[in-house]
Amino acid sequence: MTGTCIIGQSGGPTAVINASLYGAVKAALDSPKITRVLGAHHGIAGVLSDDLYDLGKEDVAELELLPFTPSSALGSCRYKLKDPDSDPKEFEKLLAIFKKYDVRYFFYIGGNDSMDTCEKVSRYFSKVSYDCRVMGIPKTIDNDLNGTDHCPGYGSAAKFIATSMLEVYKDCRVYDKRTITVVEIMGRNAGWLTAASALASKFGEGPDLIYLPETPFEMNAFLERAADEYEAQGGLLVAVSEGIRGKSGKLAIEAEAESGDGFVDSFGHVQLGGVASLLAAKLQKCTDAKVRAIELSLLQRCAAHCASKTDIDEALLAGSVAVNAAVNGETGKMVAFECTREGGYTSKTKLIPLTLSANAEKPVPAEWITDGGITDGFIDYALPLIQGEPDRPLVNSLPRFTNLKRVKA
Amino acid sequence: MTGTCIIGQSGGPTAVINASLYGAVKAALDSPKITRVLGAHHGIAGVLSDDLYDLGKEDVAELELLPFTPSSALGSCRYKLKDPDSDPKEFEKLLAIFKKYDVRYFFYIGGNDSMDTCEKVSRYFSKVSYDCRVMGIPKTIDNDLNGTDHCPGYGSAAKFIATSMLEVYKDCRVYDKRTITVVEIMGRNAGWLTAASALASKFGEGPDLIYLPETPFEMNAFLERAADEYEAQGGLLVAVSEGIRGKSGKLAIEAEAESGDGFVDSFGHVQLGGVASLLAAKLQKCTDAKVRAIELSLLQRCAAHCASKTDIDEALLAGSVAVNAAVNGETGKMVAFECTREGGYTSKTKLIPLTLSANAEKPVPAEWITDGGITDGFIDYALPLIQGEPDRPLVNSLPRFTNLKRVKA
Repeated sequence: MTGTCIIGQSGGPTAVINASLYGAVKAALDSPKITRVLGAHHGIAGVLSDDLYDLGKEDVAELELLPFTPSSALGSCRYKLKDPDSDPKEFEKLLAIFKKYDVRYFFYIGGNDSMDTCEKVSRYFSKVSYDCRVMGIPKTIDNDLNGTDHCPGYGSAAKFIATSMLEVYKDCRVYDKRTITVVEIMGRNAGWLTAASALASKFGEGPDLIYLPETPFEMNAFLERAADEYEAQGGLLVAVSEGIRGKSGKLAIEAEAESGDGFVDSFGHVQLGGVASLLAAKLQKCTDAKVRAIELSLLQRCAAHCASKTDIDEALLAGSVAVNAAVNGETGKMVAFECTREGGYTSKTKLIPLTLSANAEKPVPAEWITDGGITDGFIDYALPLIQGEPDRPLVNSLPRFTNLKRVKA
Repeated sequence: MTGTCIIGQSGGPTAVINASLYGAVKAALDSPKITRVLGAHHGIAGVLSDDLYDLGKEDVAELELLPFTPSSALGSCRYKLKDPDSDPKEFEKLLAIFKKYDVRYFFYIGGNDSMDTCEKVSRYFSKVSYDCRVMGIPKTIDNDLNGTDHCPGYGSAAKFIATSMLEVYKDCRVYDKRTITVVEIMGRNAGWLTAASALASKFGEGPDLIYLPETPFEMNAFLERAADEYEAQGGLLVAVSEGIRGKSGKLAIEAEAESGDGFVDSFGHVQLGGVASLLAAKLQKCTDAKVRAIELSLLQRCAAHCASKTDIDEALLAGSVAVNAAVNGETGKMVAFECTREGGYTSKTKLIPLTLSANAEKPVPAEWITDGGITDGFIDYALPLIQGEPDRPLVNSLPRFTNLKRVKA
């Protein structure tokens, strides 16, 4: 099948989502079956508003910088399509745009929600017999996509987190005055990123206590244990997921707000995002430590300067595999990774049904989580994903990111 | 003069303070005049409590990792000595320890307060005619030491800040939903670190507005301007020093707390360190943006993974120059840098009296600060300091930091 392709990016950005974009764009530009390569500005929202770029008009040298440029070069969105069976209006609009440009290939780089978008678009086109191949390309720092060993974007974020924890450990143990440092790491429902802090503890010095959202967080037990460890060790570093929650399933930060003795500003608004601040304030009250809260915030998902070469290479591969598979007749699939680790890391791609990854979230396996820690099973899993230093283009010792012309289609 | 030397580290750590330690230790071990090389655990506090390490017993391979290891490998302190003329008690104790080990050389790596320590020690020894050469080795990410072009530690922190701002800019402009991001940078009294964020704006994309402590911060004028720029540009990135203060000289965060409508928790405690959160909360009220506050926190002073090779090399040089100068008869001096930038960067060391750097703080020159921005004069000044990528020792793609044995003297 010959025609135009649209490539879009969706959801939270990562350090390597543009590597997947590059892999897809290059394969598409190289394919004789793909006559025109369009990029969607802000994902599916951009497609719906006919806000498309002609990527064939970009300079090759700038495209080649994509794998080293963090965030989504085409712009991203968090737009959830309705179900095409019950509410086809948006899909009719989508179809009109696809017909306008004779789009026969649609590639969407994203996480669970983006695979849901892909799945719906694919299902609708099939229903109305519009011939278009739809492929999902995985990306998320959260690493919570089902059906794949891991997800591009995770390795680089994990590497930044492990590296920063090694550094922060050195810093927060430096004074004669003893300190407690609580570091908050992203991951609302899955603790993969927070678990990555254990790489620091394994290969140097890192957090003494690690808490993921997968197991219920008990505030009093935590405070008691943290105070004990602090006394025993003369200092304490805690890594905590933003998503830790109690037995009720309520986020620790929400539970605290409701209890009424906690973290609201003087207007009564709950302080957002501050689980590290919350724990720090509580630890301040039950120890003599100087306590500090650190939120890694956006840094952990855009730190291209600390990217994993393995991650970049795999992200790039995922993009090109999706395009080549579609050209060869595949549709309704997501590119996934199948890996082995015994006797050295091997990784190969496979295609899985979009339905497998859409919406579902993969947690860190219970057997890798201990009370306040992480097992070596996780270390063996994660270590290969952070390997290798990319040859990043620098000008004046600062990263040189891509500048796309963004020519309207 | 022949005898033992003590080397200490003091004040806030940096990414390269251990490079200065290595420069000093190596020069001391190599010198026939220095018979024994001791390290003070937690700076002058460790000397006073006779808590000293024999650095001659460390493995050479581990010492060689010092230049790439952040934070202070010997431990640090924030201990202020009294004036020896009015209260000599501590100095008598110090003298006893120095005599115990026949210490004839004292090297102290630190900032303004540490130079104050050096100056007092030097003055006391001179008064009691104890023959000991005292040299200060500059370090501070704040870059606020008088008498030197710049200060080891600053270049690496500046590089991490500029790099992170380039990355964060990409991330925070990614969505169709428009955002404002406020990044808080260290520097209580001097804005050198915050100014470094302008390197991102100059050589890519960086903050749209930058505020230093050197010029009075007017909250209402800021909010009005930020809202305008946000509307005009469809997004906004603000870099702000933790030390911004109003015309009265009060920190913005303190003024807010006193005004009573601001940032206290439900116990009435002022939220610490949160000037970015304060500005974010106010911007949230006067714009339709999604607003986020980021605090670079400890990351900016310990990010050895983003260090400047120039900074490492100069830090190392400062350490060795101090030792060699002392061996050659100098005392009561601090190593400083004298640089030229026209026709390419050149840097050489000189010795300046300790009194020049002790306690005083060097602000960013007024002519480099505009209303909400930074001039090219600063860029020309700072750019050479962030140059070069060190060949960092990695194991498993994670930094391999030094492990000192810390054998008691």
